Amino acid sequence: MSISFGGDYNPEQWPEELQAEDVRLMNEAGVDLATVGVFSWALLEPEPGAYDFAWLDRVLDRLGAAGVGVDLATATASPPPWLAHRHPEVLPVTADGTTLWPGGRQAFCPSSPVYREHALRLCRAMAERYAGHPALRLWHVGNELGCHNALCYCDMSAAAFRTWLAARYGDVTELNRAWGTAFWSQRYGSFDEVQPPRTVTATANPTQQLDFRRFSSDEHLANFVAERDVLHEVSPGVPVTTNFMVTSHIKELDYHRWAAEMDLISNDFYVTAADPEGYRELAFCADQTRGLAGGGPWLLMEQSTSAVNWQPRNVAKQPGELLRNSVQHVARGADGILFFQWRASQAGSEKFHSALVPHAGTDTRVWREVVELSRTLDRLDEVVGSRTVNDVALLVDYQAWWACELDSHPSVDVTYLDRPHAVHAALTDLGIGVDVVHPDTDLSGYRLVVVPTLYTVTDAAAAAIDAAVRAGATALVTYFSGITDEHDHVRLGGYPGAFRDLLGIRVEEFYPLRSGERISLSDGSGADVWTELLHLDGATAEATYADGPLPGVPAITRHEHGEGVAWYAATRLDQHSLDALVRRVATEAGVRPIAPGRAGVEITERTDGQRRWTFVVNHTDTDAEVDVAGHDLVRDAAHDGRVPPGGVAVIRR
Amino acid sequence: MSISFGGDYNPEQWPEELQAEDVRLMNEAGVDLATVGVFSWALLEPEPGAYDFAWLDRVLDRLGAAGVGVDLATATASPPPWLAHRHPEVLPVTADGTTLWPGGRQAFCPSSPVYREHALRLCRAMAERYAGHPALRLWHVGNELGCHNALCYCDMSAAAFRTWLAARYGDVTELNRAWGTAFWSQRYGSFDEVQPPRTVTATANPTQQLDFRRFSSDEHLANFVAERDVLHEVSPGVPVTTNFMVTSHIKELDYHRWAAEMDLISNDFYVTAADPEGYRELAFCADQTRGLAGGGPWLLMEQSTSAVNWQPRNVAKQPGELLRNSVQHVARGADGILFFQWRASQAGSEKFHSALVPHAGTDTRVWREVVELSRTLDRLDEVVGSRTVNDVALLVDYQAWWACELDSHPSVDVTYLDRPHAVHAALTDLGIGVDVVHPDTDLSGYRLVVVPTLYTVTDAAAAAIDAAVRAGATALVTYFSGITDEHDHVRLGGYPGAFRDLLGIRVEEFYPLRSGERISLSDGSGADVWTELLHLDGATAEATYADGPLPGVPAITRHEHGEGVAWYAATRLDQHSLDALVRRVATEAGVRPIAPGRAGVEITERTDGQRRWTFVVNHTDTDAEVDVAGHDLVRDAAHDGRVPPGGVAVIRR
Amino acid sequence: MSISFGGDYNPEQWPEELQAEDVRLMNEAGVDLATVGVFSWALLEPEPGAYDFAWLDRVLDRLGAAGVGVDLATATASPPPWLAHRHPEVLPVTADGTTLWPGGRQAFCPSSPVYREHALRLCRAMAERYAGHPALRLWHVGNELGCHNALCYCDMSAAAFRTWLAARYGDVTELNRAWGTAFWSQRYGSFDEVQPPRTVTATANPTQQLDFRRFSSDEHLANFVAERDVLHEVSPGVPVTTNFMVTSHIKELDYHRWAAEMDLISNDFYVTAADPEGYRELAFCADQTRGLAGGGPWLLMEQSTSAVNWQPRNVAKQPGELLRNSVQHVARGADGILFFQWRASQAGSEKFHSALVPHAGTDTRVWREVVELSRTLDRLDEVVGSRTVNDVALLVDYQAWWACELDSHPSVDVTYLDRPHAVHAALTDLGIGVDVVHPDTDLSGYRLVVVPTLYTVTDAAAAAIDAAVRAGATALVTYFSGITDEHDHVRLGGYPGAFRDLLGIRVEEFYPLRSGERISLSDGSGADVWTELLHLDGATAEATYADGPLPGVPAITRHEHGEGVAWYAATRLDQHSLDALVRRVATEAGVRPIAPGRAGVEITERTDGQRRWTFVVNHTDTDAEVDVAGHDLVRDAAHDGRVPPGGVAVIRR
Repeated sequence: MSISFGGDYNPEQWPEELQAEDVRLMNEAGVDLATVGVFSWALLEPEPGAYDFAWLDRVLDRLGAAGVGVDLATATASPPPWLAHRHPEVLPVTADGTTLWPGGRQAFCPSSPVYREHALRLCRAMAERYAGHPALRLWHVGNELGCHNALCYCDMSAAAFRTWLAARYGDVTELNRAWGTAFWSQRYGSFDEVQPPRTVTATANPTQQLDFRRFSSDEHLANFVAERDVLHEVSPGVPVTTNFMVTSHIKELDYHRWAAEMDLISNDFYVTAADPEGYRELAFCADQTRGLAGGGPWLLMEQSTSAVNWQPRNVAKQPGELLRNSVQHVARGADGILFFQWRASQAGSEKFHSALVPHAGTDTRVWREVVELSRTLDRLDEVVGSRTVNDVALLVDYQAWWACELDSHPSVDVTYLDRPHAVHAALTDLGIGVDVVHPDTDLSGYRLVVVPTLYTVTDAAAAAIDAAVRAGATALVTYFSGITDEHDHVRLGGYPGAFRDLLGIRVEEFYPLRSGERISLSDGSGADVWTELLHLDGATAEATYADGPLPGVPAITRHEHGEGVAWYAATRLDQHSLDALVRRVATEAGVRPIAPGRAGVEITERTDGQRRWTFVVNHTDTDAEVDVAGHDLVRDAAHDGRVPPGGVAVIRR
Repeated sequence: MSISFGGDYNPEQWPEELQAEDVRLMNEAGVDLATVGVFSWALLEPEPGAYDFAWLDRVLDRLGAAGVGVDLATATASPPPWLAHRHPEVLPVTADGTTLWPGGRQAFCPSSPVYREHALRLCRAMAERYAGHPALRLWHVGNELGCHNALCYCDMSAAAFRTWLAARYGDVTELNRAWGTAFWSQRYGSFDEVQPPRTVTATANPTQQLDFRRFSSDEHLANFVAERDVLHEVSPGVPVTTNFMVTSHIKELDYHRWAAEMDLISNDFYVTAADPEGYRELAFCADQTRGLAGGGPWLLMEQSTSAVNWQPRNVAKQPGELLRNSVQHVARGADGILFFQWRASQAGSEKFHSALVPHAGTDTRVWREVVELSRTLDRLDEVVGSRTVNDVALLVDYQAWWACELDSHPSVDVTYLDRPHAVHAALTDLGIGVDVVHPDTDLSGYRLVVVPTLYTVTDAAAAAIDAAVRAGATALVTYFSGITDEHDHVRLGGYPGAFRDLLGIRVEEFYPLRSGERISLSDGSGADVWTELLHLDGATAEATYADGPLPGVPAITRHEHGEGVAWYAATRLDQHSLDALVRRVATEAGVRPIAPGRAGVEITERTDGQRRWTFVVNHTDTDAEVDVAGHDLVRDAAHDGRVPPGGVAVIRR
Repeated sequence: MSISFGGDYNPEQWPEELQAEDVRLMNEAGVDLATVGVFSWALLEPEPGAYDFAWLDRVLDRLGAAGVGVDLATATASPPPWLAHRHPEVLPVTADGTTLWPGGRQAFCPSSPVYREHALRLCRAMAERYAGHPALRLWHVGNELGCHNALCYCDMSAAAFRTWLAARYGDVTELNRAWGTAFWSQRYGSFDEVQPPRTVTATANPTQQLDFRRFSSDEHLANFVAERDVLHEVSPGVPVTTNFMVTSHIKELDYHRWAAEMDLISNDFYVTAADPEGYRELAFCADQTRGLAGGGPWLLMEQSTSAVNWQPRNVAKQPGELLRNSVQHVARGADGILFFQWRASQAGSEKFHSALVPHAGTDTRVWREVVELSRTLDRLDEVVGSRTVNDVALLVDYQAWWACELDSHPSVDVTYLDRPHAVHAALTDLGIGVDVVHPDTDLSGYRLVVVPTLYTVTDAAAAAIDAAVRAGATALVTYFSGITDEHDHVRLGGYPGAFRDLLGIRVEEFYPLRSGERISLSDGSGADVWTELLHLDGATAEATYADGPLPGVPAITRHEHGEGVAWYAATRLDQHSLDALVRRVATEAGVRPIAPGRAGVEITERTDGQRRWTFVVNHTDTDAEVDVAGHDLVRDAAHDGRVPPGGVAVIRR
């Protein structure tokens, strides 16, 4: 067992003669897994039903002969131009009725039967041809599904939406109740009258919007499942994956629902170049991916060796950054580190995306770091299959994200990921590991459950959190949590309806702040964006507002509830103040750091039940003192208590 | 006679069982007028032609039995989904061809015969059923007409526009003249060739744009009049209204033309939360509403008890703010204070809009302030029916607003409402009452006529202003006034063409300033945005530019004209400098304050010819000294010369 | 021979009686060339095929009788409303499918056969009627072609695009190669499958985008050529032009390809009012227009006497600015100074555009400056026909501009014109004249060739630059040059692929900077936006990075190459640092100023081979010392060594 290493291999972009050099360089770089065929549909099926597999046979044979395993795409990620030319109705349509044409990628409606039929035919042909190929390691359905065509509003999607709604609600009366159509005279007489939330006068019904997101995620998932089932049938025993995009700027698919259907969780992650602390988003998303993988190992399907091409300013990675990013992923559960892509393209939209082999060739910093990274990962192979055990669960939910960021809310400054990221950063800087998990996750093992901005929550999830606290756990809830149920109906009687009892408080009114307005708390904390007219109903006030619109009103509360304690932060604490609160809450909850951390030094652990490996990633420019004894796999030497600036360590204890 | 108090009551959003509590609470809060049925079309006519009035009968009966009068909507505000499902051509279309779908509200083209037919059928059915209902006090046509569908560019609208143009111009030659189609080769051979100002290459003909706005306002008005006529026929003697939206961010309908068709003027007003001095906009709009009501009393049909849901940051009202806002409206002519809505919705787009009964119930600040407000208004009942007499007229015109803000103008920084608001604030801070009226209003009673940014003006209106000054009044004109006629043709010979003689000046060229550029005047005033190369032609220069592109050129002029005086401010004075100018002009014109005012303290008056009531609203955080003798109705005590911070007084003299 | 003076004359906007005054005032102002008929189609052909020339006959006769020559438009600039009414398919369509309607101007698809047929019919009728008219001096095809309809994505355009591609590539395999369609599964089976780059999912293929721009420019050019051929046939001997829009904010047409088809190059130029140094853009564009004219004289077809109407803030020209702007154009090769338009419109979109005769009439600053300008230009008549000889060529290319600013590039902060403008300013402030020319221009006469941001370059152009340097010239290349070939394929092996040998460097990776990030160089220079991981390969480092992401890496390099020297600036030097570099490079290259310059003082020259005229334009508020001996034509006196603040001089030597 070893950590997989490699990336997307697109030999069709190059003369076939170059493949010999490709394989030679792959061997030099220790590549053992190549993703092949992702964008090959147009070559594999140059006209409808006529397949040309010969070139791909040669690619797989060559890779297999060189000892490079293949993550084989079903090649359905992007249909050839002939599909839309022959079937224009396959093209996706935006909310305002704009047709999206071929020329990019993913130009298909997720509810299109024509797309589905053609994709499954190709998928079956691929499976039949390559099921037994010795190089085959993994099936790769589509690619970054829904990245550009997540939401389609065409007439075909509208019809599919109606079918989905009929299945969800049974009869239209139930839909009317769920959508609250008594408001604004929206009562539907039949499902036939329902439309997707296309561009409307005023603002669209929020539950309609929410259900359309649920529907859209399900439609893409159905496409995945359909291919997966073909692969399971024709190529049994080979695991099937598709690469998620767990990141802070994509929220289109409810990966929690997807995860249950996957043989192996894989993810694509690209650092946000504009953010000097972009590694924090990486850490969060890697933890979230591990959560989707049920805590078990997962695969980093794509990252970049250096800059990408699609951000406004595609900053190159600094020396060492690639190693740090990669070890961050392994530290948080990845058992493979793959890249987009092997060789930098000469043409097309992503020609300025970095690759393992740059435009400038192998006499380059990037190539040397790639080879060095591969060698380093080799020394970590023993962690493969190990898992992570943490005391802290941080709850995230794509559906809550969707609902939280709908229009017509109290403040546009309340965004969903803000508090999850901030609490995660606070815990990480303390050296405390966090599981980023869905509210439906079994919470019984956790000392601390963080509930950040969980605007929408089901009765069951709220009850599970309550039960965990009653049983002795600590909860930390932040504002705008527990406000609505799964239909986005407000839970009445005072906010936060789902958590009033848990928190021992009652909020009668939200007091969002004006743009840029900052306030102080009685304990010296600073905050902005949000305050609430809150009453204690069993809780104690740990801090009150010193100024702002609600001086003297409780801002941070603590409530002993059953055997446990529930905290509430009713305002948007600045990071420094939040750090202090999290430290206090975690300490009181008996959550101990793996080793005492500090800002910019990540300390996490994996274990196979017997051995433990402590991962240290030092993002700072000073030595990190980490008082842990053991063998540092990275340097293959005893850990001497310090990790150098920009360095990493993996200490077997 | 008493001040009406209540709001929109939408019991269809709740279980019928709740109605008993609703009525009990209405009585507790002193509600005597409830607006019912605004968004009930889909429930009242669940399928075409099949009405279900039973539930509404029970609502009206229950309200009537409890002594709550009903402002009954014709329920045509928002058609049910079945209308667009059966008649897709009813949907509105934007300038770029985007169809606006159901899912919000008002999803209909104002020129749609299908909408009109269905709406009138419902209106007649409503009128026939409820004409004699004892609870009925007022008919309410539609709701916020044109809020989201003011301008429709569909083919049906295009046809109606052609009909409207043919009626306006008689023959196409006259249209060609009015629209200046010799420019850019736009001459029309027949009305058939004319289109609405849909998205064009370059910029659309300005007169086409202006006429399209006139047409659109007229189409909505025609819908109102059609319903009103049915109501007058079937339900004679019951007044008919529709709620205007006189505010600074909606300019779509020419309410001056509408006012003539209304039995009672009513308005919706929501404070702009981002503006810490949002009460100033309220004061202006309330004065403008009174102007539309011919100076007579009017009804505040909607305001919010606290935050709304549709602004970016929906700041809650501070304690006392609801009382101040409400008294502002009464002070400026309102004889009723109503709210949207009775009970905060649990679902839908506006669930975070505050209400009389909040999500958190009646043990809340909002409910207590509502009840207290109702008690306070009871003490003011004696003012009902009284009017306001002021020495100052400030001229506003929706058509000038439209024209002023068309594209291809000298500077995007010249916006229509800027100067009206600034002068109104200056006068208000002096304790001077202002009538905000249309240029066609009889000006004979006014000592001071303010003409701010009246870009477009008819010959008749310009002559009336001139005549008023010749007869002894004072005029204060600000830049970019009198530039074009009603066809938006420039008045030649030097700006401002309509007012050159009045002002005794001739402007040969506009000198807009660059973004952020600030200049000084010889009298120490500061200004920005705009300057003019101005020559005196009878006027005297009261201040010249000290710097900027035109040093030494007159910036503020004064002209003795007949028995009166005409002032001109050729640049955008900052508020402080404008305050000084307005003080000087008003003083010289013999306009005296009701009582000496100061910034943030509003002093206005109503009178019934015998009694006078002085209203004081103190928006500041210090005592307001108001040296007026009489009985303060609010405290039911003799006025002691001061109004506390945040307080109000209504002093009967 | 004299410098032409005049402007667009649109008498159809006014009563015919006014023409007598027009002609009288034209004579007073020395107008000798009037552009007539530009927007007259709708009047000349009020219905299809029925022409009315009588009014135009009278206009031409009147002008001819008064000695005013006519630049006669073919009147095809903007079709009448009846064309789209009868043939809706003629309307242009945007990338997202929005139809652009009549109401502005140019509402036609450039590939429309219907437009072409109607335009050519009118063109022929015009030519036949006026070929022999004594006032005719010049034919004016269309007007600002492509200003608003440059890119059309309708089905007709799509079909024409396919035809154009088939002609360019012969077979679809070659298109697939050129477009790199192996990326993202975009391989086309036939030309029928190809679409214009309409709105896509993700980002459109860059070569598709580039070819669509080439196609679009060619379609407009074909319309021009079709009219020109009719004019040449029917009206031989009369030169044909169309007015270019060489400016920094329009890049739609590849005027280099157009120039070859023109009898006379003419240009419209409007100063950017927001830019206090807008004269610099004027200077650059005038040099570029001269480059398009092959160095020979050209005609300024349009400028404004003062403000325009279509910028956000239309700042008026300061006294003297009109003279300076006009002399700038003459100094850089213009033999005529014309304006839009004669008389300021009373109606329509451009009524606030300044004119020779303002709204306020002739007792105005503008009119007096117009008359004075005309008198001044009379004194410069002797320069007509003279040319300019410079030592410096600065290479610009519309196709490189298009390609450079496509999406998915390393940094949005790299914009095409930034470096050309900055180097031009540096040279101008040194008193050095520059030819702004296309890379295909013969470079043999130049001492210095500036290659700024020439992202895309053909092999031939790169070879010509290389050859020029080998033969002894100096080259100054700036970053992001020579990156791709004409298909936008990256030149492999290290950047800048086309210029690695020339520059003696190899760049392995781009390091764009974050927004607002500033860095220093070892020589004290400051820079931002861009850095590169650069290796010397024969060159020497003249400066390295002192900080930023690449400390110690070369930032400015110098390479002796054959008999010449090639410099490279790998970062975006601030203007001050670039000035120093340009001074050093120019001095070393033996490029000498006409006279020593300074910031804001333009010194240029024209010569007829015998005489030389030195033009000095002083944009500053202090005297410009210019040590040149000769007769100043402007003052008609010996030049005394100084040009006053804001003044101009034309010194015959």
